[in-house]
Amino acid sequence: MASPSPVTPTPLLKDELDIVIPTIRNLDFLEMWRPFFQPYHLIIVQDGDPSKVINVPQGFDYELYNRNDINRILGPKASCISFKDSACRCFGYMVSKKKYIFTIDDDCFVAKDPTGNDINALEQHIKNLLSPSTPYFFNTLYDPYREGADFVRGYPFSLREGVPTAVSHGLWLNIPDYDAPTQLVKPRERNTRFVDAVLTIPKGTLFPMCGMNLAFDRELIGPAMYFGLMGDGQPIGRYDDMWAGWCMKVICDHLGLGVKTGLPYIWHSKASNPFVNLKKEYKGIYWQEELIPFFQAATLPKECTTVQSCYKELSKQVKAKLGKVDDYFNKLADAMLTWIEAWDELNPSAQLPNGK
Amino acid sequence: MASPSPVTPTPLLKDELDIVIPTIRNLDFLEMWRPFFQPYHLIIVQDGDPSKVINVPQGFDYELYNRNDINRILGPKASCISFKDSACRCFGYMVSKKKYIFTIDDDCFVAKDPTGNDINALEQHIKNLLSPSTPYFFNTLYDPYREGADFVRGYPFSLREGVPTAVSHGLWLNIPDYDAPTQLVKPRERNTRFVDAVLTIPKGTLFPMCGMNLAFDRELIGPAMYFGLMGDGQPIGRYDDMWAGWCMKVICDHLGLGVKTGLPYIWHSKASNPFVNLKKEYKGIYWQEELIPFFQAATLPKECTTVQSCYKELSKQVKAKLGKVDDYFNKLADAMLTWIEAWDELNPSAQLPNGK
Repeated sequence: MASPSPVTPTPLLKDELDIVIPTIRNLDFLEMWRPFFQPYHLIIVQDGDPSKVINVPQGFDYELYNRNDINRILGPKASCISFKDSACRCFGYMVSKKKYIFTIDDDCFVAKDPTGNDINALEQHIKNLLSPSTPYFFNTLYDPYREGADFVRGYPFSLREGVPTAVSHGLWLNIPDYDAPTQLVKPRERNTRFVDAVLTIPKGTLFPMCGMNLAFDRELIGPAMYFGLMGDGQPIGRYDDMWAGWCMKVICDHLGLGVKTGLPYIWHSKASNPFVNLKKEYKGIYWQEELIPFFQAATLPKECTTVQSCYKELSKQVKAKLGKVDDYFNKLADAMLTWIEAWDELNPSAQLPNGK
Repeated sequence: MASPSPVTPTPLLKDELDIVIPTIRNLDFLEMWRPFFQPYHLIIVQDGDPSKVINVPQGFDYELYNRNDINRILGPKASCISFKDSACRCFGYMVSKKKYIFTIDDDCFVAKDPTGNDINALEQHIKNLLSPSTPYFFNTLYDPYREGADFVRGYPFSLREGVPTAVSHGLWLNIPDYDAPTQLVKPRERNTRFVDAVLTIPKGTLFPMCGMNLAFDRELIGPAMYFGLMGDGQPIGRYDDMWAGWCMKVICDHLGLGVKTGLPYIWHSKASNPFVNLKKEYKGIYWQEELIPFFQAATLPKECTTVQSCYKELSKQVKAKLGKVDDYFNKLADAMLTWIEAWDELNPSAQLPNGK
């Protein structure tokens, strides 16, 4: 008796999305993600000792880059890619040839929704990216493009078309993404609240973008997704994703692109060491008091019509206004330019005529 | 055998909050709310025919005002209070002597949370109002002051004290608050999504404030909660709460006050007639295309340090900039001033020295 052959639907954007994973260890965590990730191509960025062999479970299609590869591919421009910090992941964004990126940490597992079903985080990110955003007016029933939702009374009709979504920021059950002081004060706090919402971060509003569970449209915003200079040889760590998020948001606001946050959740398994984190973060904790007003006030000239040109302009403003906070920001501003040069070198066709 | 006497905790803010209900019918809906509302004082604003007797279920402590009462109390200034429109509810805000107001429509019932428990909407509003807001930076885990939540990594520490919360905007299960066109297009849509979140609407972002399930701090923002000229003799309806929300938000942003939306849900039982609604709304639907840019661009001079002075200034700007959209806005601007005069007359002690 022949059983009917199961029809597996083609996964969304199978050939248009890369999964970028920074790691220092064997990628056993992929086993749990197999049903969701296996159809996609992985870009693994190996941090730390390049002689170490990283095991990837069988059956996954991947390319892996260690520090030697990065140095070989970028030459002197490799200086813009952080070492011994998960900021190195942004190298994966640069070498990808796909339209979309999903990036996830190797201590993040499949979460369950309140009915006990496994959450396909990647699918939700793709839905977020493929539906518009609404940065100009807040919809009180959250994402109006989700099934069962819409724009509420009083929402201007001219704004209901929305704008293209550039970034989808997902959240974490279990271990929340707290800074070291909060980790120290609340060592036992776990996030158990499943908030069934996706929403657009309004224009002009900054937020703390976490790189643990993040997706974006590389063509729309890729060159702004630089995770900065962190880790080895740098005075701070754990601000890589924050930096990218602030730069990205200013540029999305300028270019009329949307940023969503909320679903999907992943299960964040393990809190990092708060003492180690404090050491990495402490300069960031006081620098950010100057960074936030800087980014809140930053405006880009209307001549900046590409992500690259916006990013270069932002780098100038970083140097001019944050250089006096600490010399680190002069280095960072230079690295931002190096990053764009390297991006354009690896992605020559992506440059629009006015993109230089 | 004596049973232990049950200890009923004193309801939150029992003597500091009034519940304002606009109505044209008997208030049987209060039966379902009895466990939650009975300890509080009700202000009932009877709309329509003043000779009609409105039945209020026994055991509730209330005062009731019909149109004759409003005319008697306000004299010629009664012209600022709408007739045959739920906008009349704002008269209740004016005559209250309490610090907080909760207002609810009489077709709103007790909703259940996902575990099947009755939601005490009023208690949640009070929690929202008594905890600070965070309008200057978005927290991705939503209200950081809720149990089990906090500020995430990258949230500036200088902003963690928050600002006083002026308004708590609650949502609706079952019948969503849609405009007439959306009602017509999606007659069967019901809101079944329980989103377990409270969040601050960021500074500089406008939203559609619905008056169905709303609480606010009268001392902080009361005079801005004018529901405009709607209904009888006016060219529009169903924009009363929207108007109040836009004015209120501009003033809260100027004064550094917070506005929250999200929980609590009420059960909205019955969709109003979309054909009737379309007739009330249609001018609003195109006017709002000019109103939103107006409110988005509105700025108040720093000399305006009280709600009253902000509101008078906004009235001037309405006349100057919206008067040319339609003469209705000249009338509305005048009514805004009348409203403030009436408010100050009924609330003489609330005027700060610099409040005129």
